[in-house]
Amino acid sequence: MKILVSNDDGISSVGINKLVEELKKIGEVIVVAPATEQSAAGHSITMKNPLRVKKHFVNNSLFGYAVNGTPADCIKMGIKNILIEKPDLVISGINNGSNAAINVIYSGTVSAAREAAIMDVPSLAISVDSHTPKHYEYAAKLAAKLAKLVCEKKLRTGTLLNVNVPDLPEEEIKGIALTKQGISRWDDFFEERVDPYGVNYYWLTGKMEFLDSEKDRDVIAIQNGYASVTPIHFDLTDYNMFNTMKDWDLNSL
Amino acid sequence: MKILVSNDDGISSVGINKLVEELKKIGEVIVVAPATEQSAAGHSITMKNPLRVKKHFVNNSLFGYAVNGTPADCIKMGIKNILIEKPDLVISGINNGSNAAINVIYSGTVSAAREAAIMDVPSLAISVDSHTPKHYEYAAKLAAKLAKLVCEKKLRTGTLLNVNVPDLPEEEIKGIALTKQGISRWDDFFEERVDPYGVNYYWLTGKMEFLDSEKDRDVIAIQNGYASVTPIHFDLTDYNMFNTMKDWDLNSL
Repeated sequence: MKILVSNDDGISSVGINKLVEELKKIGEVIVVAPATEQSAAGHSITMKNPLRVKKHFVNNSLFGYAVNGTPADCIKMGIKNILIEKPDLVISGINNGSNAAINVIYSGTVSAAREAAIMDVPSLAISVDSHTPKHYEYAAKLAAKLAKLVCEKKLRTGTLLNVNVPDLPEEEIKGIALTKQGISRWDDFFEERVDPYGVNYYWLTGKMEFLDSEKDRDVIAIQNGYASVTPIHFDLTDYNMFNTMKDWDLNSL
Repeated sequence: MKILVSNDDGISSVGINKLVEELKKIGEVIVVAPATEQSAAGHSITMKNPLRVKKHFVNNSLFGYAVNGTPADCIKMGIKNILIEKPDLVISGINNGSNAAINVIYSGTVSAAREAAIMDVPSLAISVDSHTPKHYEYAAKLAAKLAKLVCEKKLRTGTLLNVNVPDLPEEEIKGIALTKQGISRWDDFFEERVDPYGVNYYWLTGKMEFLDSEKDRDVIAIQNGYASVTPIHFDLTDYNMFNTMKDWDLNSL
Protein backbone atom coordinates (compact mmCIF):
# COMPACT_ATOMS: atom_id res chain seq x y z
CA MET A 1 0.00 0.00 0.00
CA LYS A 2 1.40 3.41 -1.03
CA ILE A 3 0.39 6.12 1.45
CA LEU A 4 0.93 9.86 1.00
CA VAL A 5 1.09 11.61 4.37
CA SER A 6 0.64 15.30 5.10
CA ASN A 7 -0.58 17.55 7.92
CA ASP A 8 -1.03 21.20 8.87
CA ASP A 9 1.25 21.40 11.91
CA GLY A 10 4.33 21.20 9.69
CA ILE A 11 6.75 18.46 8.70
CA SER A 12 8.71 18.72 11.99
CA SER A 13 5.73 18.19 14.27
CA VAL A 14 5.56 15.23 16.63
CA GLY A 15 2.16 14.10 15.31
CA ILE A 16 3.28 13.42 11.75
CA ASN A 17 6.35 11.57 13.01
CA LYS A 18 4.25 9.26 15.20
CA LEU A 19 1.87 8.64 12.28
CA VAL A 20 4.65 7.80 9.82
CA GLU A 21 6.29 5.44 12.31
CA GLU A 22 3.08 3.41 12.54
CA LEU A 23 2.13 3.54 8.84
CA LYS A 24 5.53 2.21 7.78
CA LYS A 25 4.43 -1.09 9.32
CA ILE A 26 1.64 -1.46 6.74
CA GLY A 27 2.96 0.17 3.58
CA GLU A 28 5.24 2.52 1.69
CA VAL A 29 5.02 6.03 3.12
CA ILE A 30 5.79 9.26 1.28
CA VAL A 31 5.63 12.49 3.30
CA VAL A 32 4.86 15.84 1.65
CA ALA A 33 4.02 18.37 4.33
CA PRO A 34 4.14 22.10 4.98
CA ALA A 35 7.56 23.49 5.91
CA THR A 36 5.91 25.61 8.61
CA GLU A 37 2.77 25.41 10.70
CA GLN A 38 -0.41 25.97 8.66
CA SER A 39 -3.11 25.60 11.31
CA ALA A 40 -6.40 27.22 10.30
CA ALA A 41 -5.20 27.41 6.69
CA GLY A 42 -8.56 26.01 5.61
CA HIS A 43 -8.63 24.94 1.99
CA SER A 44 -6.41 27.80 0.81
CA ILE A 45 -4.05 27.15 -2.10
CA THR A 46 -1.05 29.14 -3.31
CA MET A 47 -1.62 30.75 -6.70
CA LYS A 48 0.13 34.11 -6.53
CA ASN A 49 3.50 32.92 -5.27
CA PRO A 50 5.75 30.13 -6.44
CA LEU A 51 6.43 27.21 -4.14
CA ARG A 52 9.70 25.63 -3.06
CA VAL A 53 10.22 21.97 -2.20
CA LYS A 54 13.00 20.83 0.13
CA LYS A 55 14.01 17.34 1.13
CA HIS A 56 13.61 16.95 4.88
CA PHE A 57 16.04 14.68 6.69
CA VAL A 58 15.72 13.14 10.16
CA ASN A 59 18.82 11.41 11.56
CA ASN A 60 20.48 11.66 8.15
CA SER A 61 17.71 9.72 6.41
CA LEU A 62 15.08 11.20 4.10
CA PHE A 63 11.85 11.75 6.04
CA GLY A 64 9.93 13.54 3.29
CA TYR A 65 9.43 16.73 1.31
CA ALA A 66 8.78 20.12 2.91
CA VAL A 67 6.73 22.59 0.87
CA ASN A 68 6.46 26.29 1.75
CA GLY A 69 2.74 26.23 1.10
CA THR A 70 -0.59 25.07 2.48
CA PRO A 71 -1.75 21.52 3.27
CA ALA A 72 -3.84 21.45 0.06
CA ASP A 73 -0.77 22.57 -1.93
CA CYS A 74 1.18 19.66 -0.44
CA ILE A 75 -1.34 17.12 -1.70
CA LYS A 76 -1.40 18.55 -5.24
CA MET A 77 2.41 18.72 -5.22
CA GLY A 78 2.72 15.25 -3.72
CA ILE A 79 0.43 13.52 -6.19
CA LYS A 80 1.21 15.44 -9.37
CA ASN A 81 4.89 16.41 -9.04
CA ILE A 82 6.50 14.03 -6.55
CA LEU A 83 4.68 10.69 -6.79
CA ILE A 84 3.53 11.39 -10.37
CA GLU A 85 0.96 8.61 -9.88
CA LYS A 86 -1.93 8.37 -7.43
CA PRO A 87 -1.18 6.79 -4.06
CA ASP A 88 -3.59 4.21 -2.64
CA LEU A 89 -4.42 6.50 0.23
CA VAL A 90 -3.76 9.94 1.73
CA ILE A 91 -3.60 10.38 5.49
CA SER A 92 -3.36 13.82 7.08
CA GLY A 93 -2.27 14.27 10.69
CA ILE A 94 -1.88 13.50 13.49
CA ASN A 95 -3.18 16.98 14.28
CA ASN A 96 -2.77 18.67 17.64
CA GLY A 97 -6.34 19.68 18.47
CA SER A 98 -9.75 18.32 17.58
CA ASN A 99 -11.13 18.93 14.10
CA ALA A 100 -14.68 18.14 15.12
CA ALA A 101 -17.79 20.28 14.55
CA ILE A 102 -17.08 23.68 12.96
CA ASN A 103 -13.30 23.15 13.15
CA VAL A 104 -13.61 20.99 10.05
CA ILE A 105 -14.19 24.21 8.08
CA TYR A 106 -11.03 25.99 9.27
CA SER A 107 -8.78 22.95 9.41
CA GLY A 108 -5.75 22.59 7.18
CA THR A 109 -5.46 18.95 8.25
CA VAL A 110 -8.93 18.10 6.94
CA SER A 111 -8.38 20.20 3.80
CA ALA A 112 -5.30 18.15 2.88
CA ALA A 113 -7.42 15.00 3.04
CA ARG A 114 -10.23 16.75 1.18
CA GLU A 115 -7.87 17.79 -1.62
CA ALA A 116 -7.06 14.09 -2.01
CA ALA A 117 -10.77 13.24 -2.19
CA ILE A 118 -11.21 15.89 -4.90
CA MET A 119 -8.46 14.06 -6.81
CA ASP A 120 -10.33 10.73 -6.37
CA VAL A 121 -7.83 9.40 -3.84
CA PRO A 122 -9.34 7.84 -0.68
CA SER A 123 -8.25 9.77 2.38
CA LEU A 124 -8.61 10.39 6.06
CA ALA A 125 -7.71 13.15 8.49
CA ILE A 126 -6.77 12.26 12.05
CA SER A 127 -6.57 14.54 15.07
CA VAL A 128 -6.13 14.24 18.82
CA ASP A 129 -8.41 16.32 21.02
CA SER A 130 -5.69 18.34 22.75
CA HIS A 131 -3.39 21.16 21.68
CA THR A 132 -0.61 19.45 23.63
CA PRO A 133 -1.43 15.75 23.21
CA LYS A 134 0.05 13.21 25.59
CA HIS A 135 -1.24 10.20 23.66
CA TYR A 136 -0.58 9.90 19.92
CA GLU A 137 -0.22 6.10 20.06
CA TYR A 138 -3.87 5.11 19.78
CA ALA A 139 -4.49 7.69 17.02
CA ALA A 140 -1.55 6.33 15.01
CA LYS A 141 -2.74 2.73 15.38
CA LEU A 142 -6.31 3.67 14.50
CA ALA A 143 -5.11 5.48 11.36
CA ALA A 144 -3.31 2.32 10.25
CA LYS A 145 -6.37 0.15 10.94
CA LEU A 146 -8.69 2.54 9.11
CA ALA A 147 -6.23 2.69 6.20
CA LYS A 148 -6.63 -1.04 5.72
CA LEU A 149 -10.40 -0.91 6.24
CA VAL A 150 -10.86 1.91 3.71
CA CYS A 151 -8.85 0.01 1.09
CA GLU A 152 -10.96 -3.09 1.69
CA LYS A 153 -14.45 -1.57 2.01
CA LYS A 154 -13.96 1.45 -0.32
CA LEU A 155 -15.21 4.96 0.30
CA ARG A 156 -17.61 6.64 -2.12
CA THR A 157 -15.72 8.80 -4.61
CA GLY A 158 -15.41 12.25 -3.06
CA THR A 159 -15.84 11.04 0.51
CA LEU A 160 -13.16 11.20 3.18
CA LEU A 161 -13.06 10.25 6.85
CA ASN A 162 -12.58 12.87 9.53
CA VAL A 163 -11.25 11.04 12.58
CA ASN A 164 -10.93 12.62 16.03
CA VAL A 165 -9.54 10.81 19.04
CA PRO A 166 -9.66 11.74 22.75
CA ASP A 167 -6.24 12.39 24.28
CA LEU A 168 -6.31 9.17 26.32
CA PRO A 169 -4.21 6.03 26.58
CA GLU A 170 -5.59 3.19 24.43
CA GLU A 171 -7.07 1.27 27.37
CA GLU A 172 -9.26 4.24 28.32
CA ILE A 173 -10.77 4.67 24.82
CA LYS A 174 -14.39 3.45 25.06
CA GLY A 175 -14.71 2.44 21.40
CA ILE A 176 -15.12 3.83 17.89
CA ALA A 177 -18.22 5.87 17.10
CA LEU A 178 -19.59 6.55 13.62
CA THR A 179 -20.62 10.21 13.85
CA LYS A 180 -22.04 13.26 12.09
CA GLN A 181 -20.39 16.69 12.06
CA GLY A 182 -21.43 18.58 15.20
CA ILE A 183 -22.99 22.04 15.24
CA SER A 184 -20.83 23.51 18.02
CA ARG A 185 -18.91 26.58 16.89
CA TRP A 186 -16.59 29.32 18.05
CA ASP A 187 -17.87 32.43 19.72
CA ASP A 188 -14.86 34.58 18.97
CA PHE A 189 -13.84 38.16 18.59
CA PHE A 190 -10.65 40.13 18.16
CA GLU A 191 -8.98 41.32 21.35
CA GLU A 192 -7.70 44.86 20.88
CA ARG A 193 -4.17 45.78 21.97
CA VAL A 194 -1.91 48.77 21.41
CA ASP A 195 1.58 48.34 19.91
CA PRO A 196 4.66 50.26 21.18
CA TYR A 197 3.95 52.91 18.52
CA GLY A 198 0.46 53.64 19.79
CA VAL A 199 -1.34 51.79 17.00
CA ASN A 200 -4.11 49.24 17.61
CA TYR A 201 -3.77 45.61 16.64
CA TYR A 202 -6.14 42.67 17.07
CA TRP A 203 -5.71 39.05 18.16
CA LEU A 204 -8.34 36.43 17.37
CA THR A 205 -9.62 34.91 20.58
CA GLY A 206 -12.74 33.14 21.70
CA LYS A 207 -14.35 30.12 23.26
CA MET A 208 -16.19 27.09 21.89
CA GLU A 209 -19.96 27.51 22.05
CA PHE A 210 -21.09 23.98 22.87
CA LEU A 211 -24.37 23.44 21.00
CA ASP A 212 -24.37 19.67 20.53
CA SER A 213 -26.39 17.15 22.52
CA GLU A 214 -27.07 14.23 20.14
CA LYS A 215 -25.02 11.14 20.92
CA ASP A 216 -23.96 10.57 17.32
CA ARG A 217 -22.31 14.00 16.87
CA ASP A 218 -18.52 14.07 16.70
CA VAL A 219 -17.94 16.37 19.69
CA ILE A 220 -20.23 14.35 21.96
CA ALA A 221 -18.57 11.06 21.02
CA ILE A 222 -15.13 12.49 21.81
CA GLN A 223 -16.39 13.94 25.08
CA ASN A 224 -17.72 10.49 25.99
CA GLY A 225 -14.30 8.93 25.41
CA TYR A 226 -14.90 7.48 21.93
CA ALA A 227 -12.80 7.83 18.80
CA SER A 228 -15.06 9.65 16.32
CA VAL A 229 -15.20 8.74 12.62
CA THR A 230 -17.22 11.10 10.40
CA PRO A 231 -17.63 10.56 6.66
CA ILE A 232 -17.56 13.99 4.99
CA HIS A 233 -17.67 15.20 1.39
CA PHE A 234 -17.27 18.39 -0.61
CA ASP A 235 -20.68 18.70 -2.21
CA LEU A 236 -21.85 21.74 -0.24
CA THR A 237 -25.28 21.88 -1.89
CA ASP A 238 -28.03 22.23 0.70
CA TYR A 239 -30.59 19.90 -0.92
CA ASN A 240 -33.35 20.73 1.59
CA MET A 241 -33.04 24.42 0.82
CA PHE A 242 -32.77 23.59 -2.89
CA ASN A 243 -36.21 21.94 -2.70
CA THR A 244 -37.67 24.81 -0.68
CA MET A 245 -36.35 27.33 -3.18
CA LYS A 246 -38.16 25.69 -6.08
CA ASP A 247 -41.16 27.71 -4.85
CA TRP A 248 -39.26 30.99 -4.68
CA ASP A 249 -39.88 31.88 -8.34
CA LEU A 250 -36.41 33.34 -8.88
CA ASN A 251 -37.24 34.32 -12.44
CA SER A 252 -39.74 36.91 -11.24
CA LEU A 253 -36.77 38.94 -9.94
CA MET B 1 -31.54 46.97 5.93
CA LYS B 2 -27.99 46.86 7.31
CA ILE B 3 -25.63 45.03 4.93
CA LEU B 4 -22.03 44.04 5.68
CA VAL B 5 -20.03 43.73 2.47
CA SER B 6 -16.74 41.92 1.94
CA ASN B 7 -14.85 40.09 -0.83
CA ASP B 8 -11.58 38.33 -1.58
CA ASP B 9 -10.22 40.54 -4.35
CA GLY B 10 -9.46 43.28 -1.84
CA ILE B 11 -11.13 46.53 -0.81
CA SER B 12 -9.80 48.43 -3.85
CA SER B 13 -11.22 46.05 -6.45
CA VAL B 14 -13.75 47.23 -9.00
CA GLY B 15 -16.23 44.48 -8.13
CA ILE B 16 -16.77 45.52 -4.51
CA ASN B 17 -17.16 49.14 -5.58
CA LYS B 18 -19.86 48.25 -8.12
CA LEU B 19 -21.65 46.14 -5.51
CA VAL B 20 -21.59 48.84 -2.84
CA GLU B 21 -22.89 51.45 -5.30
CA GLU B 22 -25.95 49.30 -6.00
CA LEU B 23 -26.57 48.14 -2.41
CA LYS B 24 -26.59 51.71 -1.11
CA LYS B 25 -29.90 52.11 -2.96
CA ILE B 26 -31.56 49.52 -0.71
CA GLY B 27 -29.87 49.87 2.67
CA GLU B 28 -27.05 50.93 4.93
CA VAL B 29 -23.76 49.43 3.73
CA ILE B 30 -20.68 48.75 5.85
CA VAL B 31 -17.58 47.47 4.05
CA VAL B 32 -14.98 45.34 5.85
CA ALA B 33 -12.70 43.76 3.26
CA PRO B 34 -9.16 42.44 2.88
CA ALA B 35 -6.48 45.10 2.39
CA THR B 36 -4.91 42.94 -0.32
CA GLU B 37 -6.08 40.26 -2.73
CA GLN B 38 -7.00 36.99 -0.98
CA SER B 39 -8.11 34.85 -3.91
CA ALA B 40 -8.00 31.12 -3.14
CA ALA B 41 -7.72 31.90 0.59
CA GLY B 42 -10.42 29.30 1.22
CA HIS B 43 -11.79 29.42 4.74
CA SER B 44 -8.44 30.26 6.33
CA ILE B 45 -8.41 32.48 9.40
CA THR B 46 -5.57 34.37 11.06
CA MET B 47 -4.65 32.99 14.46
CA LYS B 48 -0.87 33.28 14.70
CA ASN B 49 -0.53 36.93 13.71
CA PRO B 50 -2.35 40.00 14.93
CA LEU B 51 -4.53 41.92 12.51
CA ARG B 52 -4.62 45.61 11.66
CA VAL B 53 -7.67 47.60 10.61
CA LYS B 54 -7.41 50.75 8.51
CA LYS B 55 -10.13 53.12 7.38
CA HIS B 56 -10.23 53.14 3.58
CA PHE B 57 -11.20 56.40 1.88
CA VAL B 58 -12.40 56.93 -1.70
CA ASN B 59 -12.64 60.56 -2.88
CA ASN B 60 -12.11 61.73 0.70
CA SER B 61 -15.13 59.85 2.00
CA LEU B 62 -15.03 56.70 4.13
CA PHE B 63 -15.60 53.66 1.91
CA GLY B 64 -14.96 51.01 4.55
CA TYR B 65 -12.43 49.17 6.69
CA ALA B 66 -9.41 47.34 5.27
CA VAL B 67 -8.14 44.35 7.25
CA ASN B 68 -4.76 42.72 6.60
CA GLY B 69 -6.34 39.27 6.86
CA THR B 70 -8.52 36.78 5.08
CA PRO B 71 -12.14 37.15 3.92
CA ALA B 72 -13.34 35.05 6.90
CA ASP B 73 -11.33 37.28 9.26
CA CYS B 74 -13.10 40.32 7.79
CA ILE B 75 -16.54 38.91 8.60
CA LYS B 76 -15.60 38.06 12.19
CA MET B 77 -13.98 41.49 12.58
CA GLY B 78 -16.90 43.25 10.89
CA ILE B 79 -19.61 41.66 13.00
CA LYS B 80 -17.85 41.40 16.38
CA ASN B 81 -15.53 44.43 16.48
CA ILE B 82 -16.84 47.01 14.01
CA LEU B 83 -20.63 46.66 13.83
CA ILE B 84 -20.77 45.07 17.32
CA GLU B 85 -24.27 43.82 16.39
CA LYS B 86 -25.35 41.43 13.65
CA PRO B 87 -26.18 42.96 10.25
CA ASP B 88 -29.34 41.87 8.45
CA LEU B 89 -27.25 40.39 5.67
CA VAL B 90 -23.70 39.77 4.49
CA ILE B 91 -22.84 39.98 0.79
CA SER B 92 -19.43 38.96 -0.52
CA GLY B 93 -18.24 40.03 -3.98
CA ILE B 94 -18.51 40.87 -6.76
CA ASN B 95 -15.75 38.36 -7.45
CA ASN B 96 -13.69 38.29 -10.63
CA GLY B 97 -14.06 34.68 -11.75
CA SER B 98 -16.71 32.03 -11.28
CA ASN B 99 -17.03 30.29 -7.93
CA ALA B 100 -19.02 27.40 -9.36
CA ALA B 101 -18.31 23.66 -8.97
CA ILE B 102 -15.08 22.89 -7.08
CA ASN B 103 -14.09 26.57 -6.93
CA VAL B 104 -16.50 26.95 -4.03
CA ILE B 105 -13.98 25.00 -1.92
CA TYR B 106 -11.00 27.28 -2.66
CA SER B 107 -12.91 30.56 -2.79
CA GLY B 108 -12.30 33.32 -0.29
CA THR B 109 -15.44 35.08 -1.55
CA VAL B 110 -17.66 32.15 -0.67
CA SER B 111 -15.84 31.62 2.64
CA ALA B 112 -16.64 35.19 3.73
CA ALA B 113 -20.34 34.51 3.14
CA ARG B 114 -20.01 31.11 4.82
CA GLU B 115 -18.42 32.67 7.91
CA ALA B 116 -21.54 34.85 8.14
CA ALA B 117 -23.76 31.77 7.88
CA ILE B 118 -21.77 30.14 10.71
CA MET B 119 -22.59 33.26 12.75
CA ASP B 120 -26.32 32.89 11.91
CA VAL B 121 -26.32 35.86 9.56
CA PRO B 122 -28.03 35.32 6.17
CA SER B 123 -25.52 35.75 3.37
CA LEU B 124 -24.73 35.43 -0.28
CA ALA B 125 -21.59 35.32 -2.41
CA ILE B 126 -21.69 36.78 -5.91
CA SER B 127 -19.20 36.26 -8.73
CA VAL B 128 -18.93 37.02 -12.43
CA ASP B 129 -17.67 34.26 -14.70
CA SER B 130 -14.59 36.08 -16.02
CA HIS B 131 -11.23 37.02 -14.53
CA THR B 132 -11.53 40.38 -16.29
CA PRO B 133 -15.28 41.07 -16.20
CA LYS B 134 -16.79 43.58 -18.59
CA HIS B 135 -20.25 43.43 -17.00
CA TYR B 136 -20.66 43.92 -13.27
CA GLU B 137 -23.99 45.74 -13.61
CA TYR B 138 -26.34 42.76 -13.75
CA ALA B 139 -24.50 40.99 -10.92
CA ALA B 140 -24.80 44.09 -8.72
CA LYS B 141 -28.51 44.43 -9.45
CA LEU B 142 -29.13 40.73 -8.87
CA ALA B 143 -27.32 40.90 -5.52
CA ALA B 144 -29.64 43.72 -4.44
CA LYS B 145 -32.74 41.81 -5.57
CA LEU B 146 -31.62 38.62 -3.83
CA ALA B 147 -30.83 40.63 -0.69
CA LYS B 148 -34.47 41.69 -0.52
CA LEU B 149 -35.75 38.22 -1.39
CA VAL B 150 -33.60 36.54 1.26
CA CYS B 151 -34.81 38.95 3.94
CA GLU B 152 -38.42 38.26 2.94
CA LYS B 153 -38.32 34.48 2.37
CA LYS B 154 -35.60 33.59 4.92
CA LEU B 155 -32.81 31.11 4.42
CA ARG B 156 -32.46 28.08 6.68
CA THR B 157 -29.99 28.81 9.49
CA GLY B 158 -26.55 27.84 8.23
CA THR B 159 -27.46 28.16 4.54
CA LEU B 160 -26.02 30.73 2.17
CA LEU B 161 -26.49 31.44 -1.52
CA ASN B 162 -23.63 31.02 -3.96
CA VAL B 163 -24.47 33.18 -6.98
CA ASN B 164 -22.55 33.08 -10.26
CA VAL B 165 -23.36 35.27 -13.23
CA PRO B 166 -22.18 35.03 -16.85
CA ASP B 167 -20.11 38.03 -17.99
CA LEU B 168 -22.87 39.35 -20.22
CA PRO B 169 -24.92 42.54 -20.49
CA GLU B 170 -28.29 42.26 -18.69
CA GLU B 171 -30.31 41.85 -21.88
CA GLU B 172 -28.35 38.74 -22.83
CA ILE B 173 -28.89 36.95 -19.50
CA LYS B 174 -31.38 34.11 -20.16
CA GLY B 175 -32.80 33.98 -16.64
CA ILE B 176 -32.03 32.82 -13.11
CA ALA B 177 -31.44 29.12 -12.51
CA LEU B 178 -31.70 27.36 -9.15
CA THR B 179 -28.72 25.00 -9.23
CA LYS B 180 -26.66 22.38 -7.42
CA GLN B 181 -22.88 22.53 -7.00
CA GLY B 182 -21.22 21.06 -10.10
CA ILE B 183 -18.66 18.26 -10.06
CA SER B 184 -16.18 19.86 -12.50
CA ARG B 185 -12.74 20.33 -10.98
CA TRP B 186 -9.21 21.48 -11.73
CA ASP B 187 -6.69 19.18 -13.31
CA ASP B 188 -3.64 21.05 -12.13
CA PHE B 189 0.00 20.56 -11.38
CA PHE B 190 3.00 22.69 -10.52
CA GLU B 191 5.06 23.98 -13.40
CA GLU B 192 8.75 23.74 -12.57
CA ARG B 193 11.07 26.67 -13.24
CA VAL B 194 14.61 27.54 -12.24
CA ASP B 195 15.39 30.80 -10.44
CA PRO B 196 18.47 32.97 -11.25
CA TYR B 197 20.35 31.11 -8.50
CA GLY B 198 19.82 27.70 -10.09
CA VAL B 199 17.15 26.58 -7.62
CA ASN B 200 13.81 25.06 -8.67
CA TYR B 201 10.51 26.74 -7.92
CA TYR B 202 6.94 25.75 -8.80
CA TRP B 203 3.90 27.64 -10.09
CA LEU B 204 0.41 26.22 -9.73
CA THR B 205 -1.15 25.87 -13.16
CA GLY B 206 -3.87 23.76 -14.70
CA LYS B 207 -7.10 23.58 -16.61
CA MET B 208 -10.72 22.97 -15.64
CA GLU B 209 -11.77 19.37 -16.15
CA PHE B 210 -15.36 19.77 -17.30
CA LEU B 211 -17.31 16.84 -15.83
CA ASP B 212 -20.82 18.28 -15.62
CA SER B 213 -23.71 17.56 -17.95
CA GLU B 214 -26.89 17.93 -15.86
CA LYS B 215 -28.86 21.08 -16.63
CA ASP B 216 -29.32 22.03 -12.99
CA ARG B 217 -25.58 22.15 -12.16
CA ASP B 218 -24.08 25.59 -11.58
CA VAL B 219 -21.45 25.43 -14.35
CA ILE B 220 -23.95 24.27 -16.97
CA ALA B 221 -26.43 27.02 -16.09
CA ILE B 222 -23.72 29.67 -16.43
CA GLN B 223 -22.53 28.17 -19.70
CA ASN B 224 -26.12 28.35 -20.98
CA GLY B 225 -26.30 32.06 -20.16
CA TYR B 226 -28.21 31.86 -16.86
CA ALA B 227 -27.38 33.42 -13.52
CA SER B 228 -26.84 30.47 -11.17
CA VAL B 229 -28.11 30.46 -7.56
CA THR B 230 -26.94 27.52 -5.41
CA PRO B 231 -27.97 27.11 -1.78
CA ILE B 232 -24.97 25.73 0.12
CA HIS B 233 -24.26 24.90 3.76
CA PHE B 234 -21.38 23.90 6.00
CA ASP B 235 -22.58 20.53 7.26
CA LEU B 236 -20.07 18.40 5.39
CA THR B 237 -21.42 15.08 6.70
CA ASP B 238 -21.89 12.60 3.86
CA TYR B 239 -25.17 11.06 5.07
CA ASN B 240 -25.22 8.37 2.36
CA MET B 241 -21.80 7.16 3.40
CA PHE B 242 -22.84 7.48 7.06
CA ASN B 243 -25.65 4.99 6.42
CA THR B 244 -23.39 2.65 4.45
CA MET B 245 -20.81 2.70 7.23
CA LYS B 246 -23.31 1.50 9.82
CA ASP B 247 -22.49 -1.97 8.44
CA TRP B 248 -18.72 -1.52 8.68
CA ASP B 249 -18.53 -2.67 12.30
CA LEU B 250 -15.91 -0.11 13.30
CA ASN B 251 -15.69 -1.48 16.82
CA SER B 252 -14.15 -4.70 15.55
CA LEU B 253 -11.01 -2.71 14.68
